[in-house]
Amino acid sequence: MRAWEQYFRQVEPYTPGEQPKDTGVIKLNTNENPYPPAPAVEKAMQNMDFSKFRLYPDPKAEALVEAIAAYYQLSKDQVFVGVGSDDVIGMSFLTFFNSDKPILFPDITYSFYDVWADLFKIPYERPVLDQTFQICLEDYKKENGGVIFPNPNAPTGEAVDLEFIKKVLDYNQDVVVIIDEAYVDFGAKSAVELINQYENLLVVQTFSKSRAMAGMRIGYAMGDKRLIQALNDVKYSYNSYTMNMPAIELGVKAIEDKEYFREITEKIIDIREYSKEEFKKLGFVFGDSMANFIFVTHKEYQAEELFEYLKSKKIYVRHFKQPRIQNYLRVTIGTKEQMDALFAALKNYQRA
Amino acid sequence: MRAWEQYFRQVEPYTPGEQPKDTGVIKLNTNENPYPPAPAVEKAMQNMDFSKFRLYPDPKAEALVEAIAAYYQLSKDQVFVGVGSDDVIGMSFLTFFNSDKPILFPDITYSFYDVWADLFKIPYERPVLDQTFQICLEDYKKENGGVIFPNPNAPTGEAVDLEFIKKVLDYNQDVVVIIDEAYVDFGAKSAVELINQYENLLVVQTFSKSRAMAGMRIGYAMGDKRLIQALNDVKYSYNSYTMNMPAIELGVKAIEDKEYFREITEKIIDIREYSKEEFKKLGFVFGDSMANFIFVTHKEYQAEELFEYLKSKKIYVRHFKQPRIQNYLRVTIGTKEQMDALFAALKNYQRA
Repeated sequence: MRAWEQYFRQVEPYTPGEQPKDTGVIKLNTNENPYPPAPAVEKAMQNMDFSKFRLYPDPKAEALVEAIAAYYQLSKDQVFVGVGSDDVIGMSFLTFFNSDKPILFPDITYSFYDVWADLFKIPYERPVLDQTFQICLEDYKKENGGVIFPNPNAPTGEAVDLEFIKKVLDYNQDVVVIIDEAYVDFGAKSAVELINQYENLLVVQTFSKSRAMAGMRIGYAMGDKRLIQALNDVKYSYNSYTMNMPAIELGVKAIEDKEYFREITEKIIDIREYSKEEFKKLGFVFGDSMANFIFVTHKEYQAEELFEYLKSKKIYVRHFKQPRIQNYLRVTIGTKEQMDALFAALKNYQRA
Repeated sequence: MRAWEQYFRQVEPYTPGEQPKDTGVIKLNTNENPYPPAPAVEKAMQNMDFSKFRLYPDPKAEALVEAIAAYYQLSKDQVFVGVGSDDVIGMSFLTFFNSDKPILFPDITYSFYDVWADLFKIPYERPVLDQTFQICLEDYKKENGGVIFPNPNAPTGEAVDLEFIKKVLDYNQDVVVIIDEAYVDFGAKSAVELINQYENLLVVQTFSKSRAMAGMRIGYAMGDKRLIQALNDVKYSYNSYTMNMPAIELGVKAIEDKEYFREITEKIIDIREYSKEEFKKLGFVFGDSMANFIFVTHKEYQAEELFEYLKSKKIYVRHFKQPRIQNYLRVTIGTKEQMDALFAALKNYQRA
């Protein structure tokens, strides 16, 4: 080891799902949308004036902030934007979780939370989900430095209702509570309607799933203006210009087309419910996912073997080598055709 | 103050230069390139397949990393990319500066360094530039937790030669030394040729100035693969997908066109040298800038008054309300026409 290496920050990085370069694969491993972005995005891209790329983008990304605020009927000082919801949540950890007490998040959840906590040296505890992978309210009634969980939870897909979230907030009025709603548009109810009631509630969403814009890296947070101001202060202490010009301009187009959004979201929900039937017929067991993925386990077959088998058939799903969930697969909802190809492959596996 | 506000991270954010929405202004305040990006950028943007925006971008941004590596004849494990050089340097502070000893950077320099240090609670000392705004080698011969300075320095524009940088490196072999080369293409010599010789040297550059792509947010670091690996580990602990698809694809086009790059860079250098003559005729005093800006002070007129006067004439330059430099203006090199408009305005000021 070199002398200067002793001053390196020690981290255990998050491992994202594979992004295979082979375009022939059926990609059900990173919860992307199977449909393209709203048509207006294409037109805006083709008409964008490239000569202005020489200039810095608007550091406030005001056009995008205003479009998001308009969609949710909020004021623009209640909206913060970042480079995907990972940037928004990572920055939220750095901004809000500076207590000596541990922050709380479930043992089975988005696997970036502990990575951020480790990166920023934030203490944390991970209350255990119950046998059916539900979050237990009692676990969040202890002293803590902040609370975060996704709704629906990932990778389980299980959602809680707003009454549950209100109870969490009622018990945690002295810390910031973050609800990570990456998958909320596929059937759960957003807590955004509570932000005027609970000043310490931050709701985070993303363009990467329901808006079909993962490639553009746009995430956002909604909450009381004190929270948004604090996030902006930290953002301006790290990188003044996080959102590039295409992200700002195309993001506006993506959120403005409510009709297209509704259409593709409903299609995905329909295919998810159809897929639940098919998984059931094949002997899989799973909870009632409200997300654009289903978290399945099989009565007879090992998840890791199924994962490898499907990969050999060029169908990518996600397998987490973690306690309690190592026998599960997280399967993104693709098009009907992609799902049928998956089910056909699984049927062949059973016959083999 | 609300209870949860006590856990907010306390910061004093960086203030970026104004980005006026009025397109009629002459913008010489944020060191942007007066010319558009390389022509191939426009074509690539118009031909980009928008439907793939539904997918996550390549987390490694490999196409861009490889294009940069090819340009500098490095291997791809010697190159790290981020959302502008601010993202790259901010992440470098977090990654490399975890010593209890203070890091060192000049008292007059890029005003983001102390902001990052404060954000990440890194101790620092700021050795004073000499009377002519030169960095003093002796100041960097003390025990420290790391070293960073820009070459050319900002906002002075003064450059050091590679012999100077080698001496800094020779005295600082146990810490990471970062040379911030945002402006190096306008006349200074890059330290990138030293990275195989000094494993603890990180050289940071950007597409925002000489590549005319500030709006796309692309910065990069070059160094030993241990440094690059450590940066990537921290990046993957914060946000797996920092570079969006347009940044990756258009960045490749921007760096591939060496001919256009040379052409616009030479034009800017020529206009800078012409501008030095004009500033001199007008009674301004300044150092020998090797950047795309000149840092000027006038024998008779107050900088702040000149700043306000020019702004009233819709000419934006930069004024820093900081000790030792409050009577200076940083003027970005624009087109010949823009500079002549500036000089005409200054002549009118003298007559008034």
